[in-house]
Amino acid sequence: MTEQDLGQLPISPADQAAMDAAARRQAQLAKPPGSLGRLEEMSIRMAGITGQVCNAPDRCRVVVFAADNGVIAEGVASTPEIVTLTQSINMTKHLTGMSALAQYFGDSVVVVDVGIRNSGEYPGILNRKIRLGTGNFAKVPAMTRQEALDAIAVGLDLAAQAKAEGIQLLGIGEMGVGNTTSSAAVLAALTGAPASAVTGRGAGLTDAAFARKKAVIDGALRLHRPNAQDPIDVLSKVGGLDLAAMTGAYLGCAAAKLPAVVDGFISIVAALCAVRLQPAVRDYLFLSHVSREPGYTLAQALLGLSPCLMLDMGLGEGSGCPLAFQILKAACAVMSNMATFQEAAIDDSYLAQLTNP
Amino acid sequence: MTEQDLGQLPISPADQAAMDAAARRQAQLAKPPGSLGRLEEMSIRMAGITGQVCNAPDRCRVVVFAADNGVIAEGVASTPEIVTLTQSINMTKHLTGMSALAQYFGDSVVVVDVGIRNSGEYPGILNRKIRLGTGNFAKVPAMTRQEALDAIAVGLDLAAQAKAEGIQLLGIGEMGVGNTTSSAAVLAALTGAPASAVTGRGAGLTDAAFARKKAVIDGALRLHRPNAQDPIDVLSKVGGLDLAAMTGAYLGCAAAKLPAVVDGFISIVAALCAVRLQPAVRDYLFLSHVSREPGYTLAQALLGLSPCLMLDMGLGEGSGCPLAFQILKAACAVMSNMATFQEAAIDDSYLAQLTNP
Repeated sequence: MTEQDLGQLPISPADQAAMDAAARRQAQLAKPPGSLGRLEEMSIRMAGITGQVCNAPDRCRVVVFAADNGVIAEGVASTPEIVTLTQSINMTKHLTGMSALAQYFGDSVVVVDVGIRNSGEYPGILNRKIRLGTGNFAKVPAMTRQEALDAIAVGLDLAAQAKAEGIQLLGIGEMGVGNTTSSAAVLAALTGAPASAVTGRGAGLTDAAFARKKAVIDGALRLHRPNAQDPIDVLSKVGGLDLAAMTGAYLGCAAAKLPAVVDGFISIVAALCAVRLQPAVRDYLFLSHVSREPGYTLAQALLGLSPCLMLDMGLGEGSGCPLAFQILKAACAVMSNMATFQEAAIDDSYLAQLTNP
Repeated sequence: MTEQDLGQLPISPADQAAMDAAARRQAQLAKPPGSLGRLEEMSIRMAGITGQVCNAPDRCRVVVFAADNGVIAEGVASTPEIVTLTQSINMTKHLTGMSALAQYFGDSVVVVDVGIRNSGEYPGILNRKIRLGTGNFAKVPAMTRQEALDAIAVGLDLAAQAKAEGIQLLGIGEMGVGNTTSSAAVLAALTGAPASAVTGRGAGLTDAAFARKKAVIDGALRLHRPNAQDPIDVLSKVGGLDLAAMTGAYLGCAAAKLPAVVDGFISIVAALCAVRLQPAVRDYLFLSHVSREPGYTLAQALLGLSPCLMLDMGLGEGSGCPLAFQILKAACAVMSNMATFQEAAIDDSYLAQLTNP
């Protein structure tokens, strides 16, 4: 895709009239005002996205973008690279954490190869490979600007496809050994935060590898000098193919008026990239859980959104999404199924009859 | 029931051997160690309760204890007393917040009248009334010690009944205008915390009524001098029939080896009473959400347990329970359905075949 295509995406803010109508209905439901807290907010924003006061998002999906990261040559990951491929295959069989949860709740899972470093075809994995993993951004840019745009286009496509297939909530997940390093680098580049503030131990680094991870990120930012005002520049220099595709998926959700559920650290960094490209994307985002990675809180604060779950999780894959889908469904069920004060009022004569039978 | 009956409840800690076996299986699942965080802890404690490594808690129930509180004569509630009765009736029709959520997720709801101030019989509400509301504890004890014991017995019965009917998760809810006042009084009495630290605005008090609520609690504690070491004394002097029955329900869950889900402020104060009576009850408790009432955090800290949801809710009724049931089900699904590292390993020859087809 071209820069011009990206700039012309039809993304508009959530529908204020629908949100006003939804807020009016929430105020009529038989409960102390605001007592259902964030469930009320969620149901109102869902209305703003779909244009309908009552929603029933029964059809949910997690889309997982899988890619390898050249930067693992620097020893910044605790897991061998082959795990990107093997866990992507395992996802198609519902054997991983996220996919076991998705299967339990009846959510579909779509796994998309945007850059696994392996030239095979894998049954059940959609092949939209841009290249065989990124370059090692400690030495060279992760990818070209055009490759970043092409990965974004894959994400846009997958969101549009989900909408076309009747999906009502789309969770954005990933699989890519080394992608907490690329995510921390992108977040540092976008925000100016020091690597030490946004870098965690990922899947479980030793002290030495953790120190190396922070040094690699600092070094890469000095080497490439990504432009904080240009998320495509940041993604192409120190990002990943998964991050770029996820950025596209968020943009695509907003363009398709499809609510998007953010998973953990990698997922929220991509969400921040999308919002930097198009601020109205924020209206389409729901956060699932507080990730244990330290950069999560910064990204969350910049988005001005709050997660609903505290589970001390750090698995990735999109594992928070099936859980958040249940909470969003519940928020919509309250809006649709609770009585209004008028409906909840019980006729005095009925009570009198019960009391003096 | 007698004091002796209460002291002889067969409550033992969770099964350590089952928890060890569950922790061993979690360590074998194909994910970085601990990366599913609290879901892992939940699944391990579920194993400790049931004695089985794998669980599938499909049959869930919210039991709601409804009662009126004489202390509302002091102007400490923003809602008319009749709402205890009308919302209890509405719960049986799935029209309230909690019951709409429970119906959506397929959970059963049992509403138990332990002290609604109305002598009628209500279709669908179980009549286990101890008395017509409590006394106004600003002036007289809320109830006698025997009445508190009898209300506890009702809770014990309802937990045993749930177990007998095959329920696998029991949420403990309440309906009672004025019960944030009794709950704050009980929490202050049990802990020595000042009323100002544990009292909130409940369903929405004005500044003047909020100040009165705190003064009423302080005054009642000075008047009755409840014994902090004796939860029955505290419940009978400044508690409520709902709180006492809920305390019994938690005790009954532990006795029946049935996991109990705590809702918000009132529910957690009753849980604390149960744990003070029998410390092993703690092993059977799962917290759902962080209530917006200020006393919640103190009770949570004393229990040493953490909620999984942050929703800024303050409705009560048991409304957090249907949401937490979904998270507990998910935790158990991970334990049962994820692959172990051995199962997740993908044969090199399979990969070679894919790569060179």
